[in-house]
Amino acid sequence: MYTSESIEKAVAALSKLPSIGKKTAQRLTYYLLRQDSEFIDEFSNALLNLKTKVKLCTVCYNYTDNDPCPICRAGKRDKALLCVVEEPNDVLAIEKTNEFHGLYHVLHGVINPLDGVSPSDLKIKELVARIGELKEVILAINPSIEGEVTTQYIAKLLKPLDIKVTRIASGIPLGSSLEWTDEATLTRALEGRITL
Amino acid sequence: MYTSESIEKAVAALSKLPSIGKKTAQRLTYYLLRQDSEFIDEFSNALLNLKTKVKLCTVCYNYTDNDPCPICRAGKRDKALLCVVEEPNDVLAIEKTNEFHGLYHVLHGVINPLDGVSPSDLKIKELVARIGELKEVILAINPSIEGEVTTQYIAKLLKPLDIKVTRIASGIPLGSSLEWTDEATLTRALEGRITL
Repeated sequence: MYTSESIEKAVAALSKLPSIGKKTAQRLTYYLLRQDSEFIDEFSNALLNLKTKVKLCTVCYNYTDNDPCPICRAGKRDKALLCVVEEPNDVLAIEKTNEFHGLYHVLHGVINPLDGVSPSDLKIKELVARIGELKEVILAINPSIEGEVTTQYIAKLLKPLDIKVTRIASGIPLGSSLEWTDEATLTRALEGRITL
Repeated sequence: MYTSESIEKAVAALSKLPSIGKKTAQRLTYYLLRQDSEFIDEFSNALLNLKTKVKLCTVCYNYTDNDPCPICRAGKRDKALLCVVEEPNDVLAIEKTNEFHGLYHVLHGVINPLDGVSPSDLKIKELVARIGELKEVILAINPSIEGEVTTQYIAKLLKPLDIKVTRIASGIPLGSSLEWTDEATLTRALEGRITL
């Protein structure tokens, strides 16, 4: 159907990305065709660099160009406070709040026996190795079923180590209403009620 | 905010694409980071090839890897029938109908004085040069204001050349209803009524 094999391949490549269907891939391809060589070079270099330049920080396992990562290297952060997250983009989400000034630890997944992900596949051993310097570990793992299991697993693991382990609150999102909140979230919001 | 300059650049590059906001670009970048080198290589090669391998067909000005393009080279197509479109992706849209078996001519835009696009910026001269072999020219330019102007301009230009010039119909899309059709489209549908 395409009059160019290169266009067909580019559409196929872009279609492989999440949330990009064939129609969008097609539109993006024709958009790229209208750009100059410099744009395309810069674009594909930016993507190639993801694989050649980005590595995992050997302290927190977040993505970084320079090991250790800027957060682990920063002088001003509270080195006694550690926030444990599932994926590198969760670090980004928390950094955006500007409310957390401790360090991070990225697990790179959650325990999921159905997908064959066991605790040894995650950076849990590496987390335990960091505990010595810490006062508090905040578990900020997504409240999915697998996330809950992982939170419980890590909490149990850290308990004997004489360290404060907390988890972020689940409840009704700001701006939402009780009417539209599911029962499980509402139950959690009730359980997590705070004295005023 | 990002812990890696490479990630920041990839997000910026992806955000430049139409319909991709910063949040989506971020998600795509983290998706790409999880893929192996082979995937990224193949991906960026596919995009680079768009600029190195794809050229314009010197007959119809559609994108092609081999000049002339497969449609212009095809033996089975009706060489007396020419369909004029705005952009290469319009060729794709018409080919999908499986109803048109003539040749194409891609203008690469429409006349748009506000954006500084004059007839000489489009492949109109090249269209006139092809008229000799043709029986009918179908103008399939998008029914936007600029498209209408371009359709009228080309129709006027071809009139003295003693050739049948037609335009595709505008009207109510199949599955839609009169109630939701705008006045301009409804007017055009009435004007273009067909005897049964």
